Amino acid sequence: MTATNLAHASDAWSPVITPFTSNLAVDTERFIAHCRWLDFHGVGLAVFGTNSEANSLTLGEKRELLSQLGQAGIDPSRLMPGTGHCAIDDTVVLTRDAVDMGAAGVLMLPPFYYKGVSDEGLYRYYSEVIERVGDARLRLYLYHIPPVAQVPLSIELIARLREAFPEMVAGIKDSGGDFANTQALIDAFGADGFAVYAGSERFLLDTLRCGGAGCISATANVNPAAIAGLAADWQTAEADERQAGLNAMRDLFERYPLIPAMKAATAHFSGQASWATLRPPLVELASARHQELIVALEERDFAMPGLKEEQHG
Amino acid sequence: MTATNLAHASDAWSPVITPFTSNLAVDTERFIAHCRWLDFHGVGLAVFGTNSEANSLTLGEKRELLSQLGQAGIDPSRLMPGTGHCAIDDTVVLTRDAVDMGAAGVLMLPPFYYKGVSDEGLYRYYSEVIERVGDARLRLYLYHIPPVAQVPLSIELIARLREAFPEMVAGIKDSGGDFANTQALIDAFGADGFAVYAGSERFLLDTLRCGGAGCISATANVNPAAIAGLAADWQTAEADERQAGLNAMRDLFERYPLIPAMKAATAHFSGQASWATLRPPLVELASARHQELIVALEERDFAMPGLKEEQHG
Repeated sequence: MTATNLAHASDAWSPVITPFTSNLAVDTERFIAHCRWLDFHGVGLAVFGTNSEANSLTLGEKRELLSQLGQAGIDPSRLMPGTGHCAIDDTVVLTRDAVDMGAAGVLMLPPFYYKGVSDEGLYRYYSEVIERVGDARLRLYLYHIPPVAQVPLSIELIARLREAFPEMVAGIKDSGGDFANTQALIDAFGADGFAVYAGSERFLLDTLRCGGAGCISATANVNPAAIAGLAADWQTAEADERQAGLNAMRDLFERYPLIPAMKAATAHFSGQASWATLRPPLVELASARHQELIVALEERDFAMPGLKEEQHG
Repeated sequence: MTATNLAHASDAWSPVITPFTSNLAVDTERFIAHCRWLDFHGVGLAVFGTNSEANSLTLGEKRELLSQLGQAGIDPSRLMPGTGHCAIDDTVVLTRDAVDMGAAGVLMLPPFYYKGVSDEGLYRYYSEVIERVGDARLRLYLYHIPPVAQVPLSIELIARLREAFPEMVAGIKDSGGDFANTQALIDAFGADGFAVYAGSERFLLDTLRCGGAGCISATANVNPAAIAGLAADWQTAEADERQAGLNAMRDLFERYPLIPAMKAATAHFSGQASWATLRPPLVELASARHQELIVALEERDFAMPGLKEEQHG
């Protein structure tokens, strides 16, 4: 496999986990600190993703967080906010905010309430959003995550959107868990500069070797430097060995529900117990499981260097 | 089967379809007129249901529609708005609006983005909403619709909610399509006055005969008088025959995607073509299918009496 069709940087993004206080309010200061820590370790900020509990946030909370990130001086070119809602106007409002602040792009879920919807309906949804946003700076990354949203995005749908909006429909995150689909997306659209991101670092090297763009991955919240490092150095001799190291760490986190496990690790390594809080319907790890995870991480000399300082800075 | 445990009225509700203009804006005037027509024909107004395309409406649009219904003089005791959102605070805001206006109850989806969530997480979601609404007038009807939301509500979860909030957790709509589950719900909770509604008029008579409350059914949008009539007269000799008539009409509509088909029929019988408009990701019936449905309805002498006058009134 060669990368002659690679028309974009190889990079890694983190669907930034969202901290809550004990009464379930968004902890904005801690959120900004975590974004700084992730940025420092080389991963982009795909805030408001599935792992961010984005759909458990109100539109107003997300708008306020974006605004606060801007005011905190976070580089907007490192931002790819999730903006897809079930109602078109909600998606339009948050997408406009992201475009106006200069975000690199937006990651857009399909409307996810109705199941078995047609490609025609999804095409109308996305094209209506694009037309209402009405801004040539928009870079829209489609979000294919059938295990959660239960609304897949077909190759035919993407082809139609690419034909209508070749500049603005800029890429996709494939969280389907099936690398054959990721490869099919790269084969179909990669040569045109369409950026295909794997939804897990487990597929990072395979994705880059096929001409994909990188990964947008949950565990980039806790293991950012290693993931970003491989995304940058994927053509080096030790790439396979480094991929195996990423996989081993991913395996460990995947023994647990992923979002609670990442929050448990972040709580431990930041020294801030409130990081373990989730909004319903998600729940934190039971105490014994939490401890078991921490012991397993420490046995492997896992660390989140600088996190404690950033969170208390 | 006897109805000795029937602690509530037998009634029928319509998840009111929502009219849009050709540019996809909510048509408030036409919505109010349709509510009046449904109320006149004896069905309650479960506005903002699945068949209302509620999740394709913004929270602001729903709040405005509720306010407009109040100002239009619609009897709030005939209202059971759908208020469940993925984010707790969105649910709380709309639920408070409904309670404040004196609605009979609210119909509450579980948070539907994450799949495979625990009963503990769902319990925390509903109890957090109830506590934040903080109003003894709240009457919460749970919305079990696994084919769409993909998040079922278990008997164990309901029992726990009933124990914690015996007055406020007042009933359920069962849109699972499996009458055995409806019967299990009635057996478990019906004797306590918990109101179990079938999600389709197909199960209306069976539900009432087991001690359930009635139905909240899509096709009550187009066939309200017959459905409300059977809900009222279910203990009469001709009940089975009338149930068969309801089923035949339901069968006809179910040959098509249900929401587009109901909107097509409403467009035809009201003389207002814009009623056929849906928000993406849903799409209207293709023209030939639309015509075929209308022909089939007219062959059966189906009518929506008074609809044209109400819509132009």
